[in-house]
Amino acid sequence: MPEKTHQTTDEFINEFIDEFIAKAVFNKQGLIPAIAQDVHTQTVLMMAWMNADSLRLTLEKQEMVYYSRSRQQLWHKGETSGHTQKVHRIMLDCDADALLAQVEQIGGIACHTGRNHCFFQEYTPSGIKINTPVIKSPTAIYSSSD
Amino acid sequence: MPEKTHQTTDEFINEFIDEFIAKAVFNKQGLIPAIAQDVHTQTVLMMAWMNADSLRLTLEKQEMVYYSRSRQQLWHKGETSGHTQKVHRIMLDCDADALLAQVEQIGGIACHTGRNHCFFQEYTPSGIKINTPVIKSPTAIYSSSD
Repeated sequence: MPEKTHQTTDEFINEFIDEFIAKAVFNKQGLIPAIAQDVHTQTVLMMAWMNADSLRLTLEKQEMVYYSRSRQQLWHKGETSGHTQKVHRIMLDCDADALLAQVEQIGGIACHTGRNHCFFQEYTPSGIKINTPVIKSPTAIYSSSD
Repeated sequence: MPEKTHQTTDEFINEFIDEFIAKAVFNKQGLIPAIAQDVHTQTVLMMAWMNADSLRLTLEKQEMVYYSRSRQQLWHKGETSGHTQKVHRIMLDCDADALLAQVEQIGGIACHTGRNHCFFQEYTPSGIKINTPVIKSPTAIYSSSD
């Protein structure tokens, strides 16, 4: 195997970013599901989607950048709210068609409803229960004066 | 609100299973992503898909029943390998278009490659690394004499 030389750290990192993106299997819409898990508490925070551009930005910035299907644009999580997700680890699954990222959730709020995580509508034998409280109201989160 | 009466436990449970399935938002293919997390270790084990029928069976059996997109049929996880996933909790996210299930992974192997979990292809700045070992070979897992 020929030895590779690298002139800059950026070049070195980008080569393996390319490798990882090439390995990822995107669906017909060019998207792959991405799960964010809190690296400290292990709580599953949310699931959203990435395209190749957002995966590249995620690896480069080491912050989660999703692709918003409703807005049809890149979505740098926390850009408005300040609740960014700093990537500690990122993995593809066996079929390379799903991503898991272990992240530090800045502000402790992953959900746009103001909750720590998005999976709060829990099935119980007596009906759906809300399993986690609102920490901060969405109005307060997205207020420009906050 | 009129008080409801129930003649059997089954009837009681099915009413709220209907409620939960009605709440779930399936995509154009009739599917919803389902994340399985180990209820004891908090490890994210895998992500696969469910349709309405598989979600109903999951809630009724309290074992994960996915829908296999490649085989286009219901997939009762562990039916062949014995590595079933017993459901402890199941939740919809804020938009109700993703499921998270906390499960007991029987046999400690969720991945068809014989690993504990499927998210083993990890990005590192020096290339993709396999982050978890094979516990049991797929040949041994799927051998009828095993």
